[in-house]
Amino acid sequence: MINFRPVILVIGALTAALGGLMLLPLLADLTASDPYLRQNWSAFAAGSLLCVFAGLGLFATASGGGFETMTVRQGFLITTLSWVVLVLFASVPFMLGLYKMSFTDAFFEAMSGLTTTGATVIIGLDDAPPGLLLWRSMLQWLGGIGIVIMAIAILPMLSVGGMQLFRLESSDKNSDKILPGASQIAAAITGLYVFFTALCAMLYWGMGMTAFDAVNHAMTTIATGGFSTKDASFGYFLDSGDYGPVDVVAAAFMIVGSLPFGIYLLAMRGRINALFTDSQVRFFLMIASASIVVILLRLFYLYEIDLFTAFRLSAFNVISIMTGTGYASTDYGLWGAFAYGFFFCIMFVGGCAGSTSCGLKIFRLQVALAALTVYGKRLIFPHGVFIAHYNGRALTDDVFISVLSFFFVYFAGFATVAVILSLFGLDPVTALSAAGSAIANVGPGLGDIVGPSGNYESLPTGAKWVLSAGMLLGRLEFFTVLVLFAPSFWRR
Amino acid sequence: MINFRPVILVIGALTAALGGLMLLPLLADLTASDPYLRQNWSAFAAGSLLCVFAGLGLFATASGGGFETMTVRQGFLITTLSWVVLVLFASVPFMLGLYKMSFTDAFFEAMSGLTTTGATVIIGLDDAPPGLLLWRSMLQWLGGIGIVIMAIAILPMLSVGGMQLFRLESSDKNSDKILPGASQIAAAITGLYVFFTALCAMLYWGMGMTAFDAVNHAMTTIATGGFSTKDASFGYFLDSGDYGPVDVVAAAFMIVGSLPFGIYLLAMRGRINALFTDSQVRFFLMIASASIVVILLRLFYLYEIDLFTAFRLSAFNVISIMTGTGYASTDYGLWGAFAYGFFFCIMFVGGCAGSTSCGLKIFRLQVALAALTVYGKRLIFPHGVFIAHYNGRALTDDVFISVLSFFFVYFAGFATVAVILSLFGLDPVTALSAAGSAIANVGPGLGDIVGPSGNYESLPTGAKWVLSAGMLLGRLEFFTVLVLFAPSFWRR
Repeated sequence: MINFRPVILVIGALTAALGGLMLLPLLADLTASDPYLRQNWSAFAAGSLLCVFAGLGLFATASGGGFETMTVRQGFLITTLSWVVLVLFASVPFMLGLYKMSFTDAFFEAMSGLTTTGATVIIGLDDAPPGLLLWRSMLQWLGGIGIVIMAIAILPMLSVGGMQLFRLESSDKNSDKILPGASQIAAAITGLYVFFTALCAMLYWGMGMTAFDAVNHAMTTIATGGFSTKDASFGYFLDSGDYGPVDVVAAAFMIVGSLPFGIYLLAMRGRINALFTDSQVRFFLMIASASIVVILLRLFYLYEIDLFTAFRLSAFNVISIMTGTGYASTDYGLWGAFAYGFFFCIMFVGGCAGSTSCGLKIFRLQVALAALTVYGKRLIFPHGVFIAHYNGRALTDDVFISVLSFFFVYFAGFATVAVILSLFGLDPVTALSAAGSAIANVGPGLGDIVGPSGNYESLPTGAKWVLSAGMLLGRLEFFTVLVLFAPSFWRR
Repeated sequence: MINFRPVILVIGALTAALGGLMLLPLLADLTASDPYLRQNWSAFAAGSLLCVFAGLGLFATASGGGFETMTVRQGFLITTLSWVVLVLFASVPFMLGLYKMSFTDAFFEAMSGLTTTGATVIIGLDDAPPGLLLWRSMLQWLGGIGIVIMAIAILPMLSVGGMQLFRLESSDKNSDKILPGASQIAAAITGLYVFFTALCAMLYWGMGMTAFDAVNHAMTTIATGGFSTKDASFGYFLDSGDYGPVDVVAAAFMIVGSLPFGIYLLAMRGRINALFTDSQVRFFLMIASASIVVILLRLFYLYEIDLFTAFRLSAFNVISIMTGTGYASTDYGLWGAFAYGFFFCIMFVGGCAGSTSCGLKIFRLQVALAALTVYGKRLIFPHGVFIAHYNGRALTDDVFISVLSFFFVYFAGFATVAVILSLFGLDPVTALSAAGSAIANVGPGLGDIVGPSGNYESLPTGAKWVLSAGMLLGRLEFFTVLVLFAPSFWRR
């Protein structure tokens, strides 16, 4: 039997904390100059009370007697359930507020927030209550730090999709207990996260954004989330000419959000070169640079855009899609069939493990390439012994199977979501790109409906639920959720 | 160093044999009643002479001293090179004949033939010289038997994508030499193949096809190839009402072509129940039945087609696409977004290993599912030991890596081909479906251009070469071709 007490304890605490955090959008709404928008504060008041009471209730039920270790199965349960429960509670202010969103829409928006996806069903962001906008940004920001901590503290112990490669040296490899004590690491990383967000916000502000817009966009940039306070997304700031090079700041901080946060800690402790020697970081920058050059050359030659503008356009959009942020400056759907296909592919790449970004993750591509190399050599020399290494660790067959299984499930999941979406009558491009965009937690897809200039609001209810499930699966690396459906998980 | 002698010997013999076989379309052209079409015989005469001389020349160069064993590397070389060289020689009559096809088109058509794909660049099949039509059908028929023999005799020794599971018990597992003596098996299977073809042709003929059409379609049915003698493909025989239930015969023999031919040999030796106990056969029939029911229900409920007609329509089209045959009766692109997506997915499934059909192959889906099950259990119980079996053999980590790597390369290859096609300006649906259809050796894709009622002729030259490469990769299970590009293949 699984001991549910620690699970309930953690989820209760997180829910209560979420209720506390709702006071910030409540304050934002109260400061709105428009009395109509100001009314929206009550949604956060009600939501906050609900969360605090429910959270403390859960916490109280489960408290009494500490717990020192956490089993693998408790780890899976805590991870998946906390995301689902927090999305449910986070959606409450969307339903109660001025926009009176349906449960489906509110759940979709909250899921898109906490998974740092950035797909939205809200039309009319430009005139929305400030609290609602801040809440959306905060959800992405919280989801971002949540995933980083999870990727450092929990996933390596759960061995999800090759994450066992990132077990800290100190942890006991022969134990299936998740050791506590990651709390110092979590605290240091949270501090760093706050620092990066503040730095990004100041730069945005200095380049002409209002303080409110600067804070919101800083939160969704570092979280590689992609929610904006404007219907035109980042295009609002780029097309008017009234702002400094905010796209360059955004690109820089999307990259910051996509690198492994553990590396920053090492760098702060004096091992600056860790940033440049880590093979995941190098491969990420290599893929990003190559992709930027490809799109830059297409823009330069096919559309006769000058080299500098082409570089900025290419860099911003490539980084935005590859890291799964999903800000749009121009509708790259208009850059021709090749750009269409290319953006569709890099959408799946994602960033590094231990970052806020999503997708397949750089290290999995590296391990898969290593697996193929070893497999190819075994084909040619059936009796040879070939061993690959990654960041100084030998890659065992076990790791290969983890990572290759991940790819299999990832693309099988993608195809399944796309086919189910087509059951709702979505055309192939919309179905494929919405499915991919949800699973890779990017945000916008391709085409008129879900593309950079579209909105998910018009999709059928069923499609929104399927996409919400896709976002959760993608964000929690599939297996974390799927193992809960295995009968053997619940046995004994 | 690799000893090239056996490689040249085998390819020389095959080329000369191809030249001999060209006498059949030569005769077919000579019997044409239209004197204009009759002229086409000279293309086959010239082609035949070229093949025989070139083939015997190669054979003579390499002969002198027998060889008893074949190394793994020679196996890879023979497999890949023989396919490429035979396609080159087989394309000659297309270039020299009445249709004066370009090298690109001739190569594409010959590749589509020998890989049993069935995509065509020829418009005007209804008025084509009979020799040309027969040659196309023969290429598919030869490609079909070629792949069956290769899958039984060579691929298991090369361990390509999990094919080591099909090593015959008798073969020495600790040797990297490919043992000869598979020749009796090859002869028995060829006999069976001829028998099935003759049976199918007689049934077609009995249902009203001309003897010529019956023979041609029988060859492309059993080979799950899909070339037709009519521009309207199978629709020609179904829409007029002048023919018996030829679609039922076609469906039955496409299934016959998709089951492992080794099983038929066992059944003939008295082990009839082998046909019903083989897990690959059962899983194939299960997936096929389920898919037929899904499409049948859509047709019945959405389009109010009566149940019996819906069943025949669904069965014919599902089996045609899933087995990679690619005959079309109706444009299933008109059955709505879901059918679109569904056909796109089942296109990749394919048939059983050791059959003429293509795609991922049933056993790989089974092994992948077993890998995921084992991996899931390992996630939940990190210290448990879990072993899966397939057809009575334990599935080692080695087999899991082979099969999962295959999936990875297969879909990476698919995405690469699709992106390159989009470089030539193809729209997403055309690019995706043409890439998938080529790699899975199906034939038609989706949409107006490459869909069931379209033709590959209008594609840009570059796209045709990329698709030709895709067909070869798909047919030879990727790794057989790709290892030749590994530097270590040529070392020592």
